[in-house]
Amino acid sequence: MNTFGTIFRISIFGESHGKWVGVTIDGCPAGIPLGGSDLLPDLERRKAGAVGTTPRKEEDLPIFVSGVFNDKTTGAPITIVFENNNVRSADYDAVKNSPRPGHADFVLHKKYDGFNDHRGGGHSSGRLTVALVAAGVVAKKILSGITIEAVLAEAGGSTDIEAAINKAVEQQDSIGGIVSCTVKGIPVGLGEPFFNSLESVISHAVFSIPAIKGIEFGSGFAAAAMQGSVHNDAIISEDGATATNSAGGINGGISNGNDLYFRVAVKPASSTPKEQQTWNNATQSVQPFTVKGRHDLCIALRVPVVVEAVTAIVLADFARTNGLYY
Amino acid sequence: MNTFGTIFRISIFGESHGKWVGVTIDGCPAGIPLGGSDLLPDLERRKAGAVGTTPRKEEDLPIFVSGVFNDKTTGAPITIVFENNNVRSADYDAVKNSPRPGHADFVLHKKYDGFNDHRGGGHSSGRLTVALVAAGVVAKKILSGITIEAVLAEAGGSTDIEAAINKAVEQQDSIGGIVSCTVKGIPVGLGEPFFNSLESVISHAVFSIPAIKGIEFGSGFAAAAMQGSVHNDAIISEDGATATNSAGGINGGISNGNDLYFRVAVKPASSTPKEQQTWNNATQSVQPFTVKGRHDLCIALRVPVVVEAVTAIVLADFARTNGLYY
Amino acid sequence: MNTFGTIFRISIFGESHGKWVGVTIDGCPAGIPLGGSDLLPDLERRKAGAVGTTPRKEEDLPIFVSGVFNDKTTGAPITIVFENNNVRSADYDAVKNSPRPGHADFVLHKKYDGFNDHRGGGHSSGRLTVALVAAGVVAKKILSGITIEAVLAEAGGSTDIEAAINKAVEQQDSIGGIVSCTVKGIPVGLGEPFFNSLESVISHAVFSIPAIKGIEFGSGFAAAAMQGSVHNDAIISEDGATATNSAGGINGGISNGNDLYFRVAVKPASSTPKEQQTWNNATQSVQPFTVKGRHDLCIALRVPVVVEAVTAIVLADFARTNGLYY
Amino acid sequence: MNTFGTIFRISIFGESHGKWVGVTIDGCPAGIPLGGSDLLPDLERRKAGAVGTTPRKEEDLPIFVSGVFNDKTTGAPITIVFENNNVRSADYDAVKNSPRPGHADFVLHKKYDGFNDHRGGGHSSGRLTVALVAAGVVAKKILSGITIEAVLAEAGGSTDIEAAINKAVEQQDSIGGIVSCTVKGIPVGLGEPFFNSLESVISHAVFSIPAIKGIEFGSGFAAAAMQGSVHNDAIISEDGATATNSAGGINGGISNGNDLYFRVAVKPASSTPKEQQTWNNATQSVQPFTVKGRHDLCIALRVPVVVEAVTAIVLADFARTNGLYY
Repeated sequence: MNTFGTIFRISIFGESHGKWVGVTIDGCPAGIPLGGSDLLPDLERRKAGAVGTTPRKEEDLPIFVSGVFNDKTTGAPITIVFENNNVRSADYDAVKNSPRPGHADFVLHKKYDGFNDHRGGGHSSGRLTVALVAAGVVAKKILSGITIEAVLAEAGGSTDIEAAINKAVEQQDSIGGIVSCTVKGIPVGLGEPFFNSLESVISHAVFSIPAIKGIEFGSGFAAAAMQGSVHNDAIISEDGATATNSAGGINGGISNGNDLYFRVAVKPASSTPKEQQTWNNATQSVQPFTVKGRHDLCIALRVPVVVEAVTAIVLADFARTNGLYY
Repeated sequence: MNTFGTIFRISIFGESHGKWVGVTIDGCPAGIPLGGSDLLPDLERRKAGAVGTTPRKEEDLPIFVSGVFNDKTTGAPITIVFENNNVRSADYDAVKNSPRPGHADFVLHKKYDGFNDHRGGGHSSGRLTVALVAAGVVAKKILSGITIEAVLAEAGGSTDIEAAINKAVEQQDSIGGIVSCTVKGIPVGLGEPFFNSLESVISHAVFSIPAIKGIEFGSGFAAAAMQGSVHNDAIISEDGATATNSAGGINGGISNGNDLYFRVAVKPASSTPKEQQTWNNATQSVQPFTVKGRHDLCIALRVPVVVEAVTAIVLADFARTNGLYY
Repeated sequence: MNTFGTIFRISIFGESHGKWVGVTIDGCPAGIPLGGSDLLPDLERRKAGAVGTTPRKEEDLPIFVSGVFNDKTTGAPITIVFENNNVRSADYDAVKNSPRPGHADFVLHKKYDGFNDHRGGGHSSGRLTVALVAAGVVAKKILSGITIEAVLAEAGGSTDIEAAINKAVEQQDSIGGIVSCTVKGIPVGLGEPFFNSLESVISHAVFSIPAIKGIEFGSGFAAAAMQGSVHNDAIISEDGATATNSAGGINGGISNGNDLYFRVAVKPASSTPKEQQTWNNATQSVQPFTVKGRHDLCIALRVPVVVEAVTAIVLADFARTNGLYY
Repeated sequence: MNTFGTIFRISIFGESHGKWVGVTIDGCPAGIPLGGSDLLPDLERRKAGAVGTTPRKEEDLPIFVSGVFNDKTTGAPITIVFENNNVRSADYDAVKNSPRPGHADFVLHKKYDGFNDHRGGGHSSGRLTVALVAAGVVAKKILSGITIEAVLAEAGGSTDIEAAINKAVEQQDSIGGIVSCTVKGIPVGLGEPFFNSLESVISHAVFSIPAIKGIEFGSGFAAAAMQGSVHNDAIISEDGATATNSAGGINGGISNGNDLYFRVAVKPASSTPKEQQTWNNATQSVQPFTVKGRHDLCIALRVPVVVEAVTAIVLADFARTNGLYY
């Protein structure tokens, strides 16, 4: 399904090499100022261009299709599309015979009986995250008093990220990374017991971002090796402030008023310049394979703004389902 | 929300110290043999009794309320309830003034304006996982050819789990653990691009289990430090078999036919016998605090069967939304 | 599916001749006084006993399973069950061979491959409306300032309802009726453009009541023969009061602040004492058939309180999705 | 909410006087041939142009944004947009002060605090039904063996529809009508007990069409005046064929294999050329009022293809949730 959210609800569509990719945002309150200039900073953060990112560069100018009138939201669905200018579809002809290792080529071909648009990953491309970022900007606008900041904390196993990128360029092999996200100003009480715990819904959204393979809240995996007396956060005031934040701001699936904190594991991009092995349907054997196309060596560089976006979308929906902020 | 799933859909209800806890399972096909004896093995695995688990022991005999006729499912909603026999509510009077560190006491009190049932965690208790386990048994029944096995891989930071438990008992402090889960026999094609990726929906379900603070698929967090040429799984046959399984059986959010593999971080139980600090509303100051009640020193011991249950529930729902298995 | 609602969400379960029927109400705010005595008046209105209703009489004493603590709602799911005391299952053995005309026997047998509980209609019985009525009482409680009143406006084609019932008893043939429902005090703005129009969601809920075959809002079918200049309601004040109410209180799917008004067609109960024809699987031919069991001659007598209940459930959910009333 | 459906799910967006209106169709199987020419016949039926319809004429050429590759569906979301060429927004300036009687002007202004796009009804315009018709064409494609036919059965209270239209033109006053819809070839077993009864979901969808005020299945309101022995449809064969079809092809909310039959009441268009009365915010009094803009005298002429579309969308979703047809 390509729809997410209960009241603040987004739907995404489009393919990497199609005409447009886009998003429809339903359930946004009326009267919120919204224009292209609001979107540009986050769109810019997501863009390629830095060392370690793909040479495919898109203008990423948002086209507002609906839901905005006199520069304000109307309460009707907001549809925003982005043109795909910079496509080189011929790069992908080889994929038909040789499913790229680490990619979704094989599973998409099977799932859709070969009818999927295989060019550039089709609908399953990271290109679609431009739509998530656009929706994230709208979501952030209805979260007054809340700030969401995601950063690349590690790349290629190192906290010296510049060095890690340079090494990847030198070795011509893609690398992964870890993105950490901190949310400040979140009120006590967001999240629902059991199936809509904050962790449940945030992880649901975060794992919709391509290349994410892990998430941990607060102490996360380190907590598994801690003792309860160490892990527990002593409550030190009537409003629930805690001396430490092992819980990452969440108890029993519900925000406790402290900073929400989580970390996300980004795998190395499957499209690495290094030669690999994969099955070739033409020769019916395993063959050496080199990915064509223009790709990111460190896709994790572009992930933080997308993590912020989906977090904002989750919180905006929780806010609306709790009758807050509008 | 206490409902999960699109077509195979479960709803849970009840409180730790209420009369019954239970579950309603909607969307189960008709004609499946189902009786109390089907549930007992998994219920037994979840039960207390081993070293390191709570002395509160429940009979956990399932009462079938609806949806089963002549020992087979009817296609109508299946409701199963469990009595809460072994409650000692007086243990929880102190909680009213002193929210226990690491627990949901504080957030529940705030979220529900003090009207929540505070006894034993009320509706947010691990007691509710008995309902998840019951639903998991039903889910497993409609996943013919699929086996799901979760085990406790680490406790207190060690793979020698017996030693870790003994140390916890000796030190009288709770410990966490890591549960790993492997699913065999899953066909290619389960999971949907973007918001219903397999990782999204499994993580959503897993984080509904109390005390879970992290999840990783395949190489997970380790992938963040790997190079693409190392991480990518070479495809070695026409049916998608791979030489390695860094992806944990999932590409682009969709099962690739290899084993599904993920790991889950379980924090130490908040209820540790060790003295802690917390805010006391009566004295308006931080005070030493010792948890009363009967609790688990290593709650992670009881988590594997619950992880299996929610995984089965997710897969059963994916199966039904794809028109499979019935 | 047996779940209805987005935030204020109910799930029903049980069979006519099973142990219990019941309902789980999720998303009800905490702190609302709730006990058995709140439910009794509406349960009483739904009960049999009057001339024209079935001699099967149930005690209908609600058993609160969860979600209520110290006589107030807790914010957790509220489950309420009712025992089925007065069952005479042997009455239904004939149904296995002869699907009753007008009943769901045939379709249920086909849909569930013969595994459905056929006794008394099983899960598809009007018995389940006791669960809807219970949920309706809870819904009404969170609709302060709103009154919902449904009445039987016609029976057997006549507005002299007592005479119509007497005639039905005399002729020993079941009759239908028309229920009208008026909601006062509804604020402007409930309902969403297009798919969640007030008419859409109310009709969705009303058609879940067994035996309903039509619904019309405001002038309804009569509007089809009117001219626009006659049908339009002149707006006569700044707050939207109208001189007439052809619209039934709804414009563009959204409440306009005037009384919400709709009418519902109830078919005659399929279980009529009159001899009928139906297919007999044993003889492989059409055979005369007389319904056994105890049934209502005018089921419409018991429908108004159920219409009120589902209307209240719809409005409570709209209220919660709009952040109102709590 | 502007999304409808569980697996075959559509989302609509756009405003009457915006740039585009459109629809996203998620959950459509891959491999279905789809192009503009498939859509044209139904789009043509919906168009204006006949006597009694608006002089506003749109080209209604579908632009495929996503989800179609090599003229076949890909399994990814299908987005189709239509340009709004023929807008005369100045016609609507008066609406700001004088909410048109019978329209949603007043409720939309209140609901959205005056931020809604008021031009031509904005998002609540009948213009959006072009998106429903497009989605309906796609839905019909996956319902092999099922035919859906809706016709205008009455206009202005008469079955002589041509005469009724001529009279409306002569009197310069809008008229309503009744649309009947027959579905042939529907298998036994679509529809779910209680909340997703066929009647529930079809009525939900039908009432999303502007100007609909009533729906009845089978005998509908006439059933309310019938006796059970007359209303019941005698079953006359093993496969459930019935001698009559009072039930409209539905028992207990589930299709019984006979023709599905329902009728829909369409009110007269609120925009009638006749002078009317409405509140004027500028003068703070009731004032005579004449609608400007170009409108339909008998909007019911254009409704049948829209009823077919939403019926197809409902059945396609039921088919997919039951694992059928693909």
